[in-house]
Amino acid sequence: MAKDPSLLPDGWTDLDSRAVDTVRVLAADAVHPPSAGHPGTAMSLAPVAYLLFQKVMRHDPSDTNWVGRDRFVLSAGHSCLTLYIQLYLGGFGLELDDIKALRTWGSRTPGHPEYGHTTGVEVTTGPLGQGIGNAVGMAMAARRERGLLDPDAVPGQSPFDHQIYCIASDGDIEEGVSSEASSLAGTQRLGNLTLIYDNNRISIEDDTSIALSEDTAARYEAYGWHVQTVDWTNNGTHYTENVKALLAAIEAARAVTDRPSFIDLRTIIAWPAPNKQNTGAAHGSVLGDDEVRATKEVMGFDPEKTYEVTDEVLAHTRELVQRGKAARDEWQQAFDAWADANPRSKEFLDRLRKRELTPGWTDALPSWEADEKGVATRAASGEVLTKLAPALPELWGGSADLAGSNNTTPKGQPSFLPTDRQSKMFSGDQYGRVLHFGIREHGMGAIMNGIAVSSGLRVYGGTFLTFSDYMRPSVRLAALMKLPVTYVWTHDSIGLGEDGPTHQPVEHLTALRAIPGLDVVRPADANETAWAWKTILEHTDRPAGLILSRQNLPTFPREADGFAAASGTARGGYVLKDSEGDPEVILIGTGSEVQLAVKAQEQLAAAGVRARVVSMPCVEWFFEQDEAYRESVLPSSVKARVSVEAGIGMGWRSLIGDAGRAVSLEHFGASAAAGVLFKEFGFTPEKVAEAAQESI
Amino acid sequence: MAKDPSLLPDGWTDLDSRAVDTVRVLAADAVHPPSAGHPGTAMSLAPVAYLLFQKVMRHDPSDTNWVGRDRFVLSAGHSCLTLYIQLYLGGFGLELDDIKALRTWGSRTPGHPEYGHTTGVEVTTGPLGQGIGNAVGMAMAARRERGLLDPDAVPGQSPFDHQIYCIASDGDIEEGVSSEASSLAGTQRLGNLTLIYDNNRISIEDDTSIALSEDTAARYEAYGWHVQTVDWTNNGTHYTENVKALLAAIEAARAVTDRPSFIDLRTIIAWPAPNKQNTGAAHGSVLGDDEVRATKEVMGFDPEKTYEVTDEVLAHTRELVQRGKAARDEWQQAFDAWADANPRSKEFLDRLRKRELTPGWTDALPSWEADEKGVATRAASGEVLTKLAPALPELWGGSADLAGSNNTTPKGQPSFLPTDRQSKMFSGDQYGRVLHFGIREHGMGAIMNGIAVSSGLRVYGGTFLTFSDYMRPSVRLAALMKLPVTYVWTHDSIGLGEDGPTHQPVEHLTALRAIPGLDVVRPADANETAWAWKTILEHTDRPAGLILSRQNLPTFPREADGFAAASGTARGGYVLKDSEGDPEVILIGTGSEVQLAVKAQEQLAAAGVRARVVSMPCVEWFFEQDEAYRESVLPSSVKARVSVEAGIGMGWRSLIGDAGRAVSLEHFGASAAAGVLFKEFGFTPEKVAEAAQESI
Repeated sequence: MAKDPSLLPDGWTDLDSRAVDTVRVLAADAVHPPSAGHPGTAMSLAPVAYLLFQKVMRHDPSDTNWVGRDRFVLSAGHSCLTLYIQLYLGGFGLELDDIKALRTWGSRTPGHPEYGHTTGVEVTTGPLGQGIGNAVGMAMAARRERGLLDPDAVPGQSPFDHQIYCIASDGDIEEGVSSEASSLAGTQRLGNLTLIYDNNRISIEDDTSIALSEDTAARYEAYGWHVQTVDWTNNGTHYTENVKALLAAIEAARAVTDRPSFIDLRTIIAWPAPNKQNTGAAHGSVLGDDEVRATKEVMGFDPEKTYEVTDEVLAHTRELVQRGKAARDEWQQAFDAWADANPRSKEFLDRLRKRELTPGWTDALPSWEADEKGVATRAASGEVLTKLAPALPELWGGSADLAGSNNTTPKGQPSFLPTDRQSKMFSGDQYGRVLHFGIREHGMGAIMNGIAVSSGLRVYGGTFLTFSDYMRPSVRLAALMKLPVTYVWTHDSIGLGEDGPTHQPVEHLTALRAIPGLDVVRPADANETAWAWKTILEHTDRPAGLILSRQNLPTFPREADGFAAASGTARGGYVLKDSEGDPEVILIGTGSEVQLAVKAQEQLAAAGVRARVVSMPCVEWFFEQDEAYRESVLPSSVKARVSVEAGIGMGWRSLIGDAGRAVSLEHFGASAAAGVLFKEFGFTPEKVAEAAQESI
Repeated sequence: MAKDPSLLPDGWTDLDSRAVDTVRVLAADAVHPPSAGHPGTAMSLAPVAYLLFQKVMRHDPSDTNWVGRDRFVLSAGHSCLTLYIQLYLGGFGLELDDIKALRTWGSRTPGHPEYGHTTGVEVTTGPLGQGIGNAVGMAMAARRERGLLDPDAVPGQSPFDHQIYCIASDGDIEEGVSSEASSLAGTQRLGNLTLIYDNNRISIEDDTSIALSEDTAARYEAYGWHVQTVDWTNNGTHYTENVKALLAAIEAARAVTDRPSFIDLRTIIAWPAPNKQNTGAAHGSVLGDDEVRATKEVMGFDPEKTYEVTDEVLAHTRELVQRGKAARDEWQQAFDAWADANPRSKEFLDRLRKRELTPGWTDALPSWEADEKGVATRAASGEVLTKLAPALPELWGGSADLAGSNNTTPKGQPSFLPTDRQSKMFSGDQYGRVLHFGIREHGMGAIMNGIAVSSGLRVYGGTFLTFSDYMRPSVRLAALMKLPVTYVWTHDSIGLGEDGPTHQPVEHLTALRAIPGLDVVRPADANETAWAWKTILEHTDRPAGLILSRQNLPTFPREADGFAAASGTARGGYVLKDSEGDPEVILIGTGSEVQLAVKAQEQLAAAGVRARVVSMPCVEWFFEQDEAYRESVLPSSVKARVSVEAGIGMGWRSLIGDAGRAVSLEHFGASAAAGVLFKEFGFTPEKVAEAAQESI
């Protein structure tokens, strides 16, 4: 680094500068054949990350779960070294051998940062744009948690007040998910969020002029953010790593508490590599031996050495451990005072941190009497949420502008909104619990991940099932991170009727079941819906999609008239209504189609055929049961089986076998009344009974 | 409508005003129980749509495929009546009974506009944000087609010059896909595009203050658009439908040819319904009898009548048919002159319009010699594109900032870029053919749909397979519309290696195969890749995803050493290498795993087991073959079957049956070298052979 003191913050030493250059050496050395990686950004961002980790953020390397810590999100996940090297230098647990093991089997330094895999990584990033959404979610979670735990503290004085810092690349800025989340962050006035945009104008296709000509800073101003520019390129004339200006901008950002802050930081990728700086080649490819040597020479490092970290530098950067402990100790006093004054809140916090739900909450779950006309499962879900709201303050959520359709608003609960954003329909409270995402499913998904990964809160978000496609990248990341978020996906089939094929899910149940680690739960009636919520909330290690009907579904009798209890829902699949005598055929249904199986069973009985009805609200839960249970539900001796689900049949073959028949929908829907569509597309008791006869 | 002449364009008559009010009456009447719908926007947008269809756009109701027509995209697809009623009044083919049949089985007026279903509907819309992306694609296609057909004409003087008009709602503005496409539209300087934002500040959750506080006009300015505001609410004081001001803005937009235009039109939803205007209730619910009557009274209509369209009004609006013909006739002269002067271009246009590819193009397809080391299928695909480029000018495409990784750039071809956007790496030409989408997969998908639906061009777009999730809603719409777009999805499995689980597709092949009407094509070697491209391009009625490897794959011998010709690719599945004598077991592989099946076959042969290797690059194509062919490849007598694909096995059960074994990956991947991952996760010839033995 240049040594011009006018560019360096007060107290910045030569050792700090040397440490920053050491970061660049490590980044250049760590990215080598064959495992390769992304060296350029880690090099040019070295002073930024170092400043944040060593000088700005309040964190404690010895306790990366400290409630009061500031959070860091590397939305530019491909630049994982930006994070790993700080975790190494700062003493968070990584060592030099981990840096050397970059992107190799079993290492703690995979190609993109992975939450739960590497200590100090706050969230899994890499798919671009997601991290910005995650950071917005973290900022929202911080406010909600503060509201639950310490609402009356003076702003900035609560032990729960903390900052969220996010570094984003050109790619993050281009992705629509970040636009969605950033617009909402403006509405939500997230003063605890600072986004540093590494504006280097280079992406994989080199100069971003070919695809990115917008004025991004002006765009963030339009979102209502506090926007600053720090131009290390001095308008393209010469490069000065003005860390002092950056620190001033970060401090100014922190001082603005009624808006999120955007810092447009103009950098040169791969600085100071003499030949590959400012090129797309430096983004995702190895620099090559010659350029690595040349870069070391520029910085005054020995080109013959690799991974050169002097004891002096490491000792200096590891002082963060002591500073972190000191900060933590200071914080602890405030926290202990709070805990003494608020013992019930402290208990609640302890539960949040263990993801233990408030005791006795299941008593609040509603149940329904048998009713032929019944109720839509979305309405039943809404009733569950209304009943659970007082019992489970940690449960919150909302919808992507479909609150009334998704039934996601617990009655009488305030919205999570700055008061100047409230409307006639939704009264706002900065600590409220009803979320309004706007028509931004993808942003919703990324925000939900940020909430769940950074807090003990349980969050849900709703849209139509067909629009699960819009948020799918975030859903996948929730599954990868094992985050307990819940998607409320209503209007779950052609049963939504007149909106037509653009709105009717056909392939979605299968496509979602395909995601490893996601539970797809489609209850058949109101009581299954309550049990579905119960079972979902009892899981803390995975996301779930709750798939709900728009239309009314009959509420089955329970433990009467041959029907089993709804508690079978928790096992994923269960015998809802058995045949008299050993079954000749098994009818397996989900959701709104279970009623067809029940009616087909009657028709078959009238024809002398013994059919068992299995309700299978969650295939994933069913496969988690022991073999004996599964065999008791689906005896291997009964080869005649029929699945009935208003979607493609692809996934059912493993349950119905070669002899089975799938009553399914293998094409897109149409715009008409639900009843007409079910009939026209062959979803009737008669068709199910026919399929059963064929299967036998 | 108010009659203040200062608010009305020159030549606007009382009959025009009455026609606009008639639109509102029809919208209010058509939305009734039980089929319901969205009345509010169709009412308040009545003067906007009427102005466009009757006064602004150049189109011919008697020929909705006229090449020279202006295009209209209703991104706010839920307001389908906005479009249907204009199609009725303007004489495009819909009649009053069609309006009455709104959202019912078999009608021409489904709940959202459907391309190919209703004459005059340019593109299927409804999933929000997509229409803006489609419109951007249409504007790009118009420029590219002009460049192919009439590049030297004076701007505005070519018969191929036309305008794209798009109406967008709050929801369209909130969705990230529209942000992506709009930013790129600014880069591309799409002067032929005008976006009218119906800024009514009401969505389903009522007042958008709860989720949308940004300055959208400023955001579009930041994208580099020409931005105007037309405020019919007069800053919230009183409502004046200032059609004159709107027309002036539209004309100003058309005059600006170096930037796309954004018109921020402030309206009141459901105007002039006396009680439900400006409410979320008016967005997606029936107004109710009382309000419909009251609205009619406000406008001077008989509240006792429904669907009131006077002969006078209809005769007036149907004059558009004659005006359209006249415009068409005038255009035809210019077109004929062009055709006479450019007979070869005229032939090319005729082919484009029939989606017939340039004759002889298949001669350009490359082939590869057998090679143990082989080549990555992505590289083979790149070679195909380079070879096809001169032979198929209608073929163009690019990547979401992964050109080098997706191998989507045909060598030596210029980029589709205004010259001031070009870079050192990519030389730009406004009529170029290499597309740069930036890191905007979803925008890419929507733009591709707009290109394909509005032109005869064949477009492809690339990203990593795992990021097909980002563009999935657009892929689904391509399938629904049967558009021949091609996705180049590379890095198709854990074989991508070190980038780790965020970048490694596991569930994607299955999830994509789940979409009805999408062909998922995963070639096993270079020659299958060429055949895959050939077969994909020969289809004109569906999208395809071409799934390609990052890593080298052996190029199999062809018609030698027991290997079949690669032409079997076109049939979806074929016997690549048969056993000596009747097979005891069939090994079915796709893509990079076919080589494992081939090696397992050898190992099994050594153990005395006769195994057949089937390469199954496209399950969809295979199922289109007649039963005899399918039986010849997969004889039903051979129950022992193994599928091998580095992804989840869910979809394979229907091909391998109860006795089959799936060599599959049922969890997320990891960051390490490809070879390590394949071995650690059980993708070896030995495991395939083991599975075969188990299956037998």
